[in-house]
Amino acid sequence: MSGTNSERELLAEGPAIILVEPQLGENIGMVARAMANFGLSELRLVNPRDGWPSDKARAAASKADHVIDATRVFDTLEEALADLNFVYATTARERYGFKPVRSPVVAAATLRAKFKAGEATGIMFGRERWGLTNEEVALADEIVTFPVNPAFASLNIAQAVLLMSYEWMKGGLEDLAETSFQPLEQKPATKEQLFGMIESVEEALDARGYFRPAAKKPKMIDNLRAVLTRRAYSEQEISIMRGVFATFDRYSRKSPRGKAGPWQDLDGVDDDTDGA
Amino acid sequence: MSGTNSERELLAEGPAIILVEPQLGENIGMVARAMANFGLSELRLVNPRDGWPSDKARAAASKADHVIDATRVFDTLEEALADLNFVYATTARERYGFKPVRSPVVAAATLRAKFKAGEATGIMFGRERWGLTNEEVALADEIVTFPVNPAFASLNIAQAVLLMSYEWMKGGLEDLAETSFQPLEQKPATKEQLFGMIESVEEALDARGYFRPAAKKPKMIDNLRAVLTRRAYSEQEISIMRGVFATFDRYSRKSPRGKAGPWQDLDGVDDDTDGA
Repeated sequence: MSGTNSERELLAEGPAIILVEPQLGENIGMVARAMANFGLSELRLVNPRDGWPSDKARAAASKADHVIDATRVFDTLEEALADLNFVYATTARERYGFKPVRSPVVAAATLRAKFKAGEATGIMFGRERWGLTNEEVALADEIVTFPVNPAFASLNIAQAVLLMSYEWMKGGLEDLAETSFQPLEQKPATKEQLFGMIESVEEALDARGYFRPAAKKPKMIDNLRAVLTRRAYSEQEISIMRGVFATFDRYSRKSPRGKAGPWQDLDGVDDDTDGA
Repeated sequence: MSGTNSERELLAEGPAIILVEPQLGENIGMVARAMANFGLSELRLVNPRDGWPSDKARAAASKADHVIDATRVFDTLEEALADLNFVYATTARERYGFKPVRSPVVAAATLRAKFKAGEATGIMFGRERWGLTNEEVALADEIVTFPVNPAFASLNIAQAVLLMSYEWMKGGLEDLAETSFQPLEQKPATKEQLFGMIESVEEALDARGYFRPAAKKPKMIDNLRAVLTRRAYSEQEISIMRGVFATFDRYSRKSPRGKAGPWQDLDGVDDDTDGA
């Protein structure tokens, strides 16, 4: 699940991520990695405990060097926010104030709309151990909080950044069902193709004495057809199934395909198709 | 952003998370922590490299002990999946097959629907370095893949589990805008309250000779009113603003509130309200 690819489009836009007094370089690196995965690139650090630059951060960033290289350090949160138009504060704790509280989905939609309008935006994340102070939260426009397990709320900053970055990325998709790759296209089988398969199976079974006693044959055929029509087969799947049945029909354990001479492809089955 | 709370409801349901040949105990622990945050509890390991139980896993799980304690180990993936009805395979790489490929949002909705129908479900995650083999993916019903930066796709397994767990949790929300806490309720101010504030400000400014030259007064009042009516103030905000203006009006630097005798609250301002 890893690897950068320089031939593909490198997304690097969107809100700045602001870490307030982060302690561990590893966490800063994991934040950079999370950001890069979802196309964010602007990292700002307020007074990082162990200084900057940080080898540990670079190592943990897992080649998100473009984020690490562009990281800027500020002495105060006010300076880090100065050029931004709209800022979220992330918090897990209830804050008793009037500031609007948003879910990640709503916050991401808001950030995306402001991005499109040319506004500079940011998301603030607090210290590893105790988050943001009320005074820091007061500098934000709105609050964003995550829908976590009420009895186990324990997101670290890299995880919190990952979730906001992911929602940011999703906010840019036209369709939430969109995926970066799709299965091979399959044409649904026609009924004729389906019936052809069923017929050949019935014939082969009949030739082997499958339908006994004779009085039960109609019911057995009903059951068999119910099973074989259960799925909306694609053309490829019909081909695969016909290949399976034909193999049973024509070859035996004692006289398998290799022994019995060249394979005859009477069903138009593409033998390279393995359905996997 | 951390802390378990035994008085709150512990969510522990939903799909099993299946890790295929995970290598590092730390990663297994981070997976458990990610799961617990979003209410998942059933972790299955297929042939973990460094054995099980793992002290490193428990330490990294950050008190997600209920997940660690219930973790089960299997020799083969087939055994790990045996009692499940429907399984997703996660992959970042394009797989050239016919298996449906879903986004996390669609996969989470499917898992939620199957959960409600009483089906046992699971999500498979591959090894740290190279994911799942095609043979392993073939055991799943469908594929799920994440919308990542095309040029920087580098999610580790704990991050991938975090995202799927988060989407699972969101799938259980009635409303994606839902948050676990809300701001204090604010009643929108009436126009009468707003106009009352504006009037008092104008009067106080006028008494100080603010409107000069006199010819400019109408325009200055227009501008002032435009600023003061810019926001849809709440009642509390009107109170806060009136308190601010009243303080300017009644006290000076030379004769501040403490010196000038007891504060008179003519505007009905709640002095405990700090708006933060």
